[in-house]
Amino acid sequence: MSFDIAATFRPGLPAPGAKWSGNLPYSFLGGHNDGASVPFGGLTEAASAIMMREGPNLATYNLGGSPQGYLPLREFVAASLATRASTPTDPDEVLITSGSLQALDLVYSLFLQRGDVVIVEEATYGGTLSGLAARGVEVRGVALDEDGIRPDHLEVLLDELALAGTPPKFIYTIPTVQNPTGSVMSVERRLALLELARHHGVAIFEDDCYADLVFDGNRPPTLRALDDGGGQVVYCGSFSKSIAPSLRVGYVVADWPVVGQMLSLKTDAGTGALEQLVLAEYSAAHFDDHVATLTSALSAKSQAMCSAVRESFGEAAEFTEPRGGIFVWVALPDGVDTATLVAPALEKGVEFNPGAGWSVDPAYGSRRMRLCFGHPSEDTIREGVGLLAEVVAAETGLQLP
Amino acid sequence: MSFDIAATFRPGLPAPGAKWSGNLPYSFLGGHNDGASVPFGGLTEAASAIMMREGPNLATYNLGGSPQGYLPLREFVAASLATRASTPTDPDEVLITSGSLQALDLVYSLFLQRGDVVIVEEATYGGTLSGLAARGVEVRGVALDEDGIRPDHLEVLLDELALAGTPPKFIYTIPTVQNPTGSVMSVERRLALLELARHHGVAIFEDDCYADLVFDGNRPPTLRALDDGGGQVVYCGSFSKSIAPSLRVGYVVADWPVVGQMLSLKTDAGTGALEQLVLAEYSAAHFDDHVATLTSALSAKSQAMCSAVRESFGEAAEFTEPRGGIFVWVALPDGVDTATLVAPALEKGVEFNPGAGWSVDPAYGSRRMRLCFGHPSEDTIREGVGLLAEVVAAETGLQLP
Repeated sequence: MSFDIAATFRPGLPAPGAKWSGNLPYSFLGGHNDGASVPFGGLTEAASAIMMREGPNLATYNLGGSPQGYLPLREFVAASLATRASTPTDPDEVLITSGSLQALDLVYSLFLQRGDVVIVEEATYGGTLSGLAARGVEVRGVALDEDGIRPDHLEVLLDELALAGTPPKFIYTIPTVQNPTGSVMSVERRLALLELARHHGVAIFEDDCYADLVFDGNRPPTLRALDDGGGQVVYCGSFSKSIAPSLRVGYVVADWPVVGQMLSLKTDAGTGALEQLVLAEYSAAHFDDHVATLTSALSAKSQAMCSAVRESFGEAAEFTEPRGGIFVWVALPDGVDTATLVAPALEKGVEFNPGAGWSVDPAYGSRRMRLCFGHPSEDTIREGVGLLAEVVAAETGLQLP
Repeated sequence: MSFDIAATFRPGLPAPGAKWSGNLPYSFLGGHNDGASVPFGGLTEAASAIMMREGPNLATYNLGGSPQGYLPLREFVAASLATRASTPTDPDEVLITSGSLQALDLVYSLFLQRGDVVIVEEATYGGTLSGLAARGVEVRGVALDEDGIRPDHLEVLLDELALAGTPPKFIYTIPTVQNPTGSVMSVERRLALLELARHHGVAIFEDDCYADLVFDGNRPPTLRALDDGGGQVVYCGSFSKSIAPSLRVGYVVADWPVVGQMLSLKTDAGTGALEQLVLAEYSAAHFDDHVATLTSALSAKSQAMCSAVRESFGEAAEFTEPRGGIFVWVALPDGVDTATLVAPALEKGVEFNPGAGWSVDPAYGSRRMRLCFGHPSEDTIREGVGLLAEVVAAETGLQLP
């Protein structure tokens, strides 16, 4: 008689995963990137060069160095933030993480307990919403426009929460290439956000995962830089979007009280050394050139996606062209619930993120959807969006072009 | 005025980490491995070969495949378990993890909530003890001898816990190259353990991280194999000890109800793909030969460590020669507390694991210590153990040779 091990699992588990069953022909979800732009030749050369120098150090955890991560990689991150994002950084302020998802997890573990409140943007990264929900944290959404967080609404929220005796533990923002809206927060808004956070004594968690992918290369200073040593901002970034998502290397940049405490929460015996070594070696020589090539390819795909949505949906789709990144945030007319379109779209081989998973307020999110364009070809984008429009027309009765 | 961000951290955090300050000359702690045995040339060749084939797939999370991990690596794990450990395995039963520490974390998340009870071996991996303590889980220690868990004591423990209405959620065991004792559980004991676990309806979590490092190559069948489809055993292993600890790749082997549920708990967007690719390519061709060379080097270091302890401590040190792995578990006379030796040893440049952190019962653990020999040279071992003996003599007044 076989033992029913599932009967001994703890209560309250999320729904189990499904067996992987292959990829769909028209996939507009996930942070996948342009296959032709992955610099695998350069990464391979970097691997050969660095392994000659550092190979034997693989025998020790953390390559025999700091648990904060491989020093040349932290030096690259620091130098790159200084030159690309006007953010002078000391390598000792950098903690390398196993993808920025681990950075998020560490921030949650550092600040949050069940019942805490966090302010997020009204449309935000779905993984953050599910991660916070899994920890029993309440989220409040702050309104966005094309320049990012609206300070007038943030002020109201902060006042409300203070009055209720439930001040937020931090404000989570994706200021540069906001996920999912693709906007870039203006410097004026950044300063206003910092001012309000200071006034209310609330930390800011700045998620800059997509910030290297601004199409026009015009990247504003980070909130962390504008805070100018004020101690208000914990920053994170990633190589997933700029180099390759299958590599799991991200980073936190913060003052020592944060980094030191995170070290005791990061119980994984270090982030994968081979990926750190190869990224350090490759990035020092090639990062800027590679990102310029990549963003040019992504900008073309963004144009293809926006054109396809305009052609297939016409007036029924509202969106702002993304200023960078790999997704566009599309609103359909009132009354449409994009969650109900998922199953019929799958039948046509099309997948996308319905807006509810990327929004705090279902009323705001339900008519929206996130369409990712980093991985599919321009032809696939055009065909897939056409099929998606057919599904929308059939399911909602909307008159589309 | 600078913001005091630490004042907003959650309560109950562990002590923060310290800034890294370099390595000691005589380090006998940590799962580091023999530097000369790291096959970095072979790993580099593997990287070049595999990147030509799989490079563009780095553009998609999980290399565009299953979130369970890179299929050829899962196939290698399955084949290797069959040939090296008499454990027929389907690649679909394998979940690749970011080191076996993530495997441990996933098992904890799957089974445990605050207040649960787990049975562990009376001497066991310190990371497991601290991980369970951080989750508010109570541990009970089962007695060990040279053949592993003592079934007579396990039976008493299981009966006691059943009677108290607090049956354990699982039994955690490191049967092959037990950490820290270096023993290998006999097949008879394995069968007795399974029988008791079945009788009490308790799962077994088999941590086989060091199992590739048995010096005489005589590796018994795993508990998972002996369970023969009974569904009782969740298994984990690692490449950290057999290839290199800086690479963070481990694996869980379990039935689908476990693997599927773990997928929903593994929210890291996949384990690093570069390390998976390189390990799959390298291991398929070279794993067995490499491990034979490595264990031969480690066996020589084990001899060096055991000789050094005998020479420097004489009758004052009791230990059983490890049957594999990278550590020896040494008991000093009653009344010695190895925790008090840490600071004076550090002053001489020597570090080791005091036994309390690797034991359930302080009375059992306090006179013991774990000495790791994988990384230091034989000369360093001899010198460092000599210095440690000087510290012990000076601090305890013991007469040593």
